[in-house]
Amino acid sequence: MTDPLARRAEELDAADPLAALRDRFVPAADVVAYLDGNSLGRPIAGTAERLAAFVTDAWGGRLIRGWNEGWLAEPERLGDRIGRVALGAAAGQTLVGDSTTVLLYKAIRAALAARADRTEIVLDAANFPTDRYLLAGIAAELGHRLVVLDPPVDGGVTPAMVADAVGPRTALVLLSHVAFRSGYMTDAAAITRITHEAGALVVWDLSHSTGAVPVALDAWDADLAAGCTYKYLNGGPGAPAFVYVASRLQDELRQPIQGWLGTADPFRMGERYEPATGVRRFTSGTPPVIGMLPIADMLTLIEEAGLPAVRAKSVALTGFAIEIADALLAPEGVRVESPRDAARRGSHVTLAHPRFAALLEPLWRRGVVPDFREPDGLRIGLSPLSTSFQEVLTGLTAVQKELVRG
Amino acid sequence: MTDPLARRAEELDAADPLAALRDRFVPAADVVAYLDGNSLGRPIAGTAERLAAFVTDAWGGRLIRGWNEGWLAEPERLGDRIGRVALGAAAGQTLVGDSTTVLLYKAIRAALAARADRTEIVLDAANFPTDRYLLAGIAAELGHRLVVLDPPVDGGVTPAMVADAVGPRTALVLLSHVAFRSGYMTDAAAITRITHEAGALVVWDLSHSTGAVPVALDAWDADLAAGCTYKYLNGGPGAPAFVYVASRLQDELRQPIQGWLGTADPFRMGERYEPATGVRRFTSGTPPVIGMLPIADMLTLIEEAGLPAVRAKSVALTGFAIEIADALLAPEGVRVESPRDAARRGSHVTLAHPRFAALLEPLWRRGVVPDFREPDGLRIGLSPLSTSFQEVLTGLTAVQKELVRG
Repeated sequence: MTDPLARRAEELDAADPLAALRDRFVPAADVVAYLDGNSLGRPIAGTAERLAAFVTDAWGGRLIRGWNEGWLAEPERLGDRIGRVALGAAAGQTLVGDSTTVLLYKAIRAALAARADRTEIVLDAANFPTDRYLLAGIAAELGHRLVVLDPPVDGGVTPAMVADAVGPRTALVLLSHVAFRSGYMTDAAAITRITHEAGALVVWDLSHSTGAVPVALDAWDADLAAGCTYKYLNGGPGAPAFVYVASRLQDELRQPIQGWLGTADPFRMGERYEPATGVRRFTSGTPPVIGMLPIADMLTLIEEAGLPAVRAKSVALTGFAIEIADALLAPEGVRVESPRDAARRGSHVTLAHPRFAALLEPLWRRGVVPDFREPDGLRIGLSPLSTSFQEVLTGLTAVQKELVRG
Repeated sequence: MTDPLARRAEELDAADPLAALRDRFVPAADVVAYLDGNSLGRPIAGTAERLAAFVTDAWGGRLIRGWNEGWLAEPERLGDRIGRVALGAAAGQTLVGDSTTVLLYKAIRAALAARADRTEIVLDAANFPTDRYLLAGIAAELGHRLVVLDPPVDGGVTPAMVADAVGPRTALVLLSHVAFRSGYMTDAAAITRITHEAGALVVWDLSHSTGAVPVALDAWDADLAAGCTYKYLNGGPGAPAFVYVASRLQDELRQPIQGWLGTADPFRMGERYEPATGVRRFTSGTPPVIGMLPIADMLTLIEEAGLPAVRAKSVALTGFAIEIADALLAPEGVRVESPRDAARRGSHVTLAHPRFAALLEPLWRRGVVPDFREPDGLRIGLSPLSTSFQEVLTGLTAVQKELVRG
């Protein structure tokens, strides 16, 4: 371990105003550096007890009456809270339920139906596979054309690239706000404006943003968005996702998976499907009440810290990771494939080396837990509230040792 | 309370070989008769602790490594178990995830795509609203025609009705095995055969069957099915659903919500969507691991009891409910709107009276908890393992008292 970096880590941790919040997370006995909070956030102390109490007291005690006593409203209530704490979204526009994939599908289909006279969809080659696969399936079905942007490996889609791609045939632009591999954070406000000027709608995938970087859906004038809650919102493995539908579009948009709980008056069970007013029309099936429970605990923690402070720590953590990579890993041939400009960087850093695929397992065995993304990327995900600067140094020092040993 | 009925309840409980299993469920302090296990099954003792332990030890302790250590396989593992215990389905055909609505949507779309040269869909007017709404939306989009069967209020769809409705234009028949209102259990084997003879595919909605009545998907030669787990499988409010896809169809069928975890090799993150072989291709997003956990506990209980014994108790409970209704409620003008033939009856009984809408709230306040279905139906749902004969009598006696008082 290089002394100056050890001193830096110590100083950064000592100066971290959010350091005390790390104690709120459940410890993992054999993990010395958890560098994958961007894939699965850690549970918070108290979540386990809250889940158990729900089973016994709410589910077991209230039984079916619980639906009338609050559960039915929970997708909107929790959605509003995510909107307020993490998305810059006024109430009445965010809904929790389904998986990110299913909600993206609904958002895409709803947007395309609202632009039925247009036949092109703009996306980028660095989008998460699900986003690309969803669009490929839908485009094939509707006979639409995909316009695929191809950003550099350590960057992402720029407003200029979108401006070149959109036109009078563009129905939809679907992009990730923060790219899943490079961590590039795009200029969502500018891209939304450019998309609207072309008469198209935009769907933002916020999976790698929500809870770690500022999102301002209302200020961007965004149309639709979706994202997951098991990364920086610490909802647990496979926790339900959220969808955002701008108020001004809600009456116009129809989603294709029409279930009774998305109707104006579900218990009337009328002959025809009449969608609810508001974002609830994006509901399909019964809300996943138990799956939604853990999310609230992380929202409380983010509110306590304040999202600007969370972002400041994220910038410092990812900056420190790059600093360590330059000092310790560049000599071993490791490349930084994430933006060096903090303003364009999300909360993870991808490092690339041809031998990283073989290193993941030995690292995990040592309790150093990043993840790997094909073909050669080690993704260092730094969930701000649960990660220390020392952890980043410990983890990347272990990476260096494995590289040298290899 | 009529003495002979009280004696009957006592005798039936004393003779019930499954009576002891009632103690395995979490008690609800203020409930004297839970008659809605068909809407939301009760939690089982131990489920709360298992959830809490999962949060702390598995999610918190294994973190992202948990996906490789079993979570990713859980939708198929749990699906196989549901298939074996409750569906008469050999391994490799049942998958857990999403909501019933979303899985029905996928099943319907997959079936219609496999019969793309046909343009008619057969359903029935007594189907659960979601099934009707889903089909209405999809039919409108594809320009298909809906052929709507109209069974009697206390009955359901018969093979003869289906035989009259299907023909060379029929792509799909979508029916509930047990009707959500009347509780009529249709002859699924015969209807499947008739559907196949017409060259069409059948999707079975098993929401009101699974865990309470015998289902034999493989023996019926069924094509696709879906159902929920929060009723007789006691998965908790909004627990994930399951889908069944017959092995012989899996290579041919494509579902429309294409996510990375449904591909043959998800972590390759290839350019094109290549669906997995087997039922896993019906996966869209990340499996709802926490939401799936409670289901296993009820499967264990059903296995312990044996599904034939569960069914025998269900027949006895619903029969006793009709016996009480005839004795106590018919004089007040209550009609039985469920089959009197036990062989055609699921595990709930619907009683009808014009004043039932107003009675639900006072009943709930007395700890008597059935549910209400428009326009005048009180649904008496009798989850076999958690319900006593005394509870049925207590509940229906309270209904009588409220009717007389009203």
